[in-house]
Amino acid sequence: MYIDLIKHIGYQIKLLVKWFLLIVPIAVIVGSLNAFFLWLLEEATGYRMSTYAHHSWIIYLLPLAGILIVWSYKKYGKNSAGGNNLIIDEIHEPGGGVPTRMAPFVLFSTVITHLFGGSAGREGTAVQIGGAIAQQFGKWYKLDEKDTKLILISGVAAGFGSVFGTPITGAIFALEVLAIGKIKYHAVIPALIASVVGNFVTIAWGISHEHLRLVNIAKEVNVQFNEDLHYDHIALLIGKIALAGIAFGFAGFLFGELTHKVKEVLTKVLKNQYLVPVVGAIFVIAVVKISGTYDYIGIGTSSYLPGGVCISSAFHAGGAKAYSWLMKLVMTAVTLGSGFKGGEVTPLFFVGATLGNTLAGVLNAPVALFAALGFIGVFSAATNTPMACTIMGVELFGSQYLLYFAVVCFVAYYFSGHTGIYTSQRVSAPKL
Amino acid sequence: MYIDLIKHIGYQIKLLVKWFLLIVPIAVIVGSLNAFFLWLLEEATGYRMSTYAHHSWIIYLLPLAGILIVWSYKKYGKNSAGGNNLIIDEIHEPGGGVPTRMAPFVLFSTVITHLFGGSAGREGTAVQIGGAIAQQFGKWYKLDEKDTKLILISGVAAGFGSVFGTPITGAIFALEVLAIGKIKYHAVIPALIASVVGNFVTIAWGISHEHLRLVNIAKEVNVQFNEDLHYDHIALLIGKIALAGIAFGFAGFLFGELTHKVKEVLTKVLKNQYLVPVVGAIFVIAVVKISGTYDYIGIGTSSYLPGGVCISSAFHAGGAKAYSWLMKLVMTAVTLGSGFKGGEVTPLFFVGATLGNTLAGVLNAPVALFAALGFIGVFSAATNTPMACTIMGVELFGSQYLLYFAVVCFVAYYFSGHTGIYTSQRVSAPKL
Repeated sequence: MYIDLIKHIGYQIKLLVKWFLLIVPIAVIVGSLNAFFLWLLEEATGYRMSTYAHHSWIIYLLPLAGILIVWSYKKYGKNSAGGNNLIIDEIHEPGGGVPTRMAPFVLFSTVITHLFGGSAGREGTAVQIGGAIAQQFGKWYKLDEKDTKLILISGVAAGFGSVFGTPITGAIFALEVLAIGKIKYHAVIPALIASVVGNFVTIAWGISHEHLRLVNIAKEVNVQFNEDLHYDHIALLIGKIALAGIAFGFAGFLFGELTHKVKEVLTKVLKNQYLVPVVGAIFVIAVVKISGTYDYIGIGTSSYLPGGVCISSAFHAGGAKAYSWLMKLVMTAVTLGSGFKGGEVTPLFFVGATLGNTLAGVLNAPVALFAALGFIGVFSAATNTPMACTIMGVELFGSQYLLYFAVVCFVAYYFSGHTGIYTSQRVSAPKL
Repeated sequence: MYIDLIKHIGYQIKLLVKWFLLIVPIAVIVGSLNAFFLWLLEEATGYRMSTYAHHSWIIYLLPLAGILIVWSYKKYGKNSAGGNNLIIDEIHEPGGGVPTRMAPFVLFSTVITHLFGGSAGREGTAVQIGGAIAQQFGKWYKLDEKDTKLILISGVAAGFGSVFGTPITGAIFALEVLAIGKIKYHAVIPALIASVVGNFVTIAWGISHEHLRLVNIAKEVNVQFNEDLHYDHIALLIGKIALAGIAFGFAGFLFGELTHKVKEVLTKVLKNQYLVPVVGAIFVIAVVKISGTYDYIGIGTSSYLPGGVCISSAFHAGGAKAYSWLMKLVMTAVTLGSGFKGGEVTPLFFVGATLGNTLAGVLNAPVALFAALGFIGVFSAATNTPMACTIMGVELFGSQYLLYFAVVCFVAYYFSGHTGIYTSQRVSAPKL
């Protein structure tokens, strides 16, 4: 028995070392590409938002940018347009595979989307870079079907973990996003290796994550709300948080529905597919011009002008309008639904943080805390990943509010229906 | 569509309110019983360990206490002896149900075990109180099979969450312990309500959780290791943590195997079942007398004499002997394997923290951090609940070390084999 045991431990160590060696090159490349992507994104956003150089005219080129993206995907992209859903499908049932070119395509078209003022995020891009690179390595390694699934999950983890600087969230997200209602651990070791190494590599390239700016937000959350509450006050607060969770769940649901609907209606109504991004872009430009604010385009982490609405402003009283969450939600749904590229998650952070800001006023609750709760809650609802979002709350804002994070993420998840932004997600278990 | 949506949200709110109303009475009773249990446990431990009154002779009565426990379970306990495994079985496939008397039986027999110096813990007791009370309410509510499963899971969550003062860990543990390799969310909302309310109730009874003492340990972890490490140092540290994780995984595996083996051998060799606890008790007394220390009996959170080994001492350099973890492991396996009652988790904390202390010396790593890692890592390995243990790390020691907690819990889990202390756990997915 003891010889068997030693043999067994030896076998497990060998397996661990094998996966470590398989994953590290992938994580290094994904982490590096994400560093490059984040740098480009910063440059593009900085160029457009440069107030002294007056580059805001660039958004008039958004329709052309859209045509360029749709044309290049159609002409050279192969099935890259499948995006996150293709990766999820390939993990469930390996088929034709994720094309390697998905990585450069999504990287540059996301940067173009942001440069010209589309409203989008980053995580979709990072996940697709991760999936595409992992698939290519899987082919070089000649992996069988089972191991290909594991390596794709690891690629997703590396992408997500390194783009937000939240490695544990990245690993959990990659496992949790596959199906609604459960999380399977079979790939947790490779996923953890991938996201931790990927994150190290991105940091090593000198990229200061948005994360680092969020740490300051976290400090503000603590400053504004650093009191030992008596437990009956906590009970009341949890009641308010559950109510807010219902609203966040609904916002997440609405975002997914609207994005699908925009895509469906535009492609049905418009015969010429190049008109789809043009119409989307004109809508975005029109909203900017009519509303007179640039706050709802781009990545939204910081504001175009002092006093504008952005993710960090939402952590202060008065830092968001009552309609801010809906504006960002619609602008992003139109941008992504009409064929532009980028992620959904950072806009979901924006929607959640601003909605949290507004709800804090309605419910007489701490603003910074409710902005943080919205930040993770709407994301949880739209992607059906409550565990990853709870962990993200801890990674970004600290453990002090773990209870509130868990309550809001699971309530929002519960109220978001059995759909989400990823149509390839399987439904594994009902939500209650 | 919108009317359907409003109807749907209305239905979901109704469902939420229904479960809230169903769960609250259970959580109140479980939280109250756990408060009573923790108070009795404190009294019993205090009586035995009272140094000025010299009550340590009481351990000579341990064989009699064992006979009393075995006799009363046999005569009046019905199938209460099934314990945690019975509850897990009933959640997988509802059958005869968990008998209500399991609650008082396990409560008093655990207190007796501790009073007379057995080496045991608390979580099994709390979980069984939770399961038994929940089952009784389920019968009163006339729940169907599906809802009975949910309410049993909620009872487990209430028990675990309130006994350790870690509500999120309680809810996750209740979902995660059912099967190895996955976590299903179908019961997460009732489980969260149960553990949060249960924990509030226990606190409201004025019980200061062991947790509160651990907060001080957490501060020490931070004080000893509060430096911004450069990322290549972090990489080295993570390597050390992974190595320690292998050791923790092995310790968790060994604990489960030994407990099962002791039970199997003693019941096979001894024809008279009352001899089983007598032999176990004599072994425990003999070890105490030969080793000359009372450090390895009882709950182990604090030491009998200044300078002794206990959970909190393990967080300081020199606070554990190289063999401490093995002593506690053997003493607990013999105590529980020979028919005494109590949980496994607090002894697993002891085994892990002392092993972490020793490994910190071997690996030239921070002592308090490695004690904390062992604390959660051995528990993760023995119960196959890496997510709950990662969360527990955060709930007890803060978010700063989330990365290390996740690595150690999942590595230890990976190296503990496809068995554990709960034989009724199903294997859902291979570990890699």
